[in-house]
Amino acid sequence: MKLYDDPRSGNGYKVRLLLALLGEQYQYIPIDILRGDSRTDEFLQKNLNGRIPLLELDNGSFLPESNAILYYLAQGSKYWPTGCFEQAQVVQWLCFEQYSHEPNIATPRFWLTIKGMDDTPFNHELLAQKQKAGNQALAVMDEHLRSRQFFVGERYTIADIALYAYTHEADEGGFDLALYPAVVAWLKRVSEQPGHITTEHRNTA
Amino acid sequence: MKLYDDPRSGNGYKVRLLLALLGEQYQYIPIDILRGDSRTDEFLQKNLNGRIPLLELDNGSFLPESNAILYYLAQGSKYWPTGCFEQAQVVQWLCFEQYSHEPNIATPRFWLTIKGMDDTPFNHELLAQKQKAGNQALAVMDEHLRSRQFFVGERYTIADIALYAYTHEADEGGFDLALYPAVVAWLKRVSEQPGHITTEHRNTA
Ligand SMILES: N[C@@H](CCC(=O)N[C@@H](CS)C(=O)NCC(=O)O)C(=O)O
Ligand SMILES: N[C@@H](CCC(=O)N[C@@H](CS)C(=O)NCC(=O)O)C(=O)O
Repeated sequence: MKLYDDPRSGNGYKVRLLLALLGEQYQYIPIDILRGDSRTDEFLQKNLNGRIPLLELDNGSFLPESNAILYYLAQGSKYWPTGCFEQAQVVQWLCFEQYSHEPNIATPRFWLTIKGMDDTPFNHELLAQKQKAGNQALAVMDEHLRSRQFFVGERYTIADIALYAYTHEADEGGFDLALYPAVVAWLKRVSEQPGHITTEHRNTA
Repeated sequence: MKLYDDPRSGNGYKVRLLLALLGEQYQYIPIDILRGDSRTDEFLQKNLNGRIPLLELDNGSFLPESNAILYYLAQGSKYWPTGCFEQAQVVQWLCFEQYSHEPNIATPRFWLTIKGMDDTPFNHELLAQKQKAGNQALAVMDEHLRSRQFFVGERYTIADIALYAYTHEADEGGFDLALYPAVVAWLKRVSEQPGHITTEHRNTA
């Protein structure tokens, strides 16, 4: 397996974290997205949508979308529940992550900590909107976690992995996690799972 | 089963369409999102995230997120492929829909055709950004469909259903579908599937 990824990406970290938990070896192919390396003709042949992370299977097939890669790799493992309804609930949180969470929590971090942002009134208002929506997403998570250890079925699944990636660095996007104590307790539980790795670590071939 | 939904919602239409194709009866509970009916205390008890569509099972469990509902209802039907990698590719397009497509194609339609939008410079710039990103998503779909009948495995799946919902009304968001001939041909194929319904139709109990 090959993983095309930018080491700074939280979407990529989701996949690196699951691969580490599963003990899978893979070849790591760094892609510098700020330099436009995910938009070259060569890369667009592999993923029309011009984004990382991207998984290449040994048979040469490509799979983009971080949460679809989690879904694929988790099949048959303990990170994917066995019951039909619990599986659907995992998919529910993967969708929540893509729709209500990542665009509002990862993007402010990308602007404030990685790429920088032009100092225009439009950008300031968009940042404020995203931070407001990101706080709403964190409040939904906090409320859900108040009576639970993990997002689905009281077990650590790919729903937790997907949501952990950008939540645990949300402070870099201007969010105050202290407002969400159930989220903070859950972050700690996730980080204490056997085999956990931080964003800097990989287990490549 | 009960479906909480606003009749104007494309996310709701995804679910109504699949339920019709499956020939499932259900109780339809209209929620007026413009009046705030998805944000009442009573509704937030059912879905913390305050959104429709929301499925209630006969055992009283709730499942939000349109694409998770599609996933759940399609299990064991011909709208969900049997191979592992094809299943992951369906999830890939469900994620693409939530991340790259819906926020850029549905939101302009909501502003221009349903809710109206305040005439501020910020809103105009945000609309222009979304239309640019929406056109990129349509171009990705067009390129993918140039050599295919359907999104995954040459069969009609929930990936097609999810993407059809807002694509077939994209003109209401200011998009010119004539620029995407492979998308137009695919829209026609989807609308010709046996059992297809338009946005106005339901098959409720
Ligand atoms: N929905 C996608 C989002 C992927 C995404 O936006 N990746 C960013 C980095 S985190 C990227 O590749 N950006 C470079 C570009 O768009 O050119 C996923 O979850 O994988
Ligand atoms: N990711 C969700 C999005 C659902 C969503 O945003 N629904 C809108 C209508 S299409 C809604 O309920 N808006 C009312 C509100 O947010 O208060 C899905 O696919 O179901």
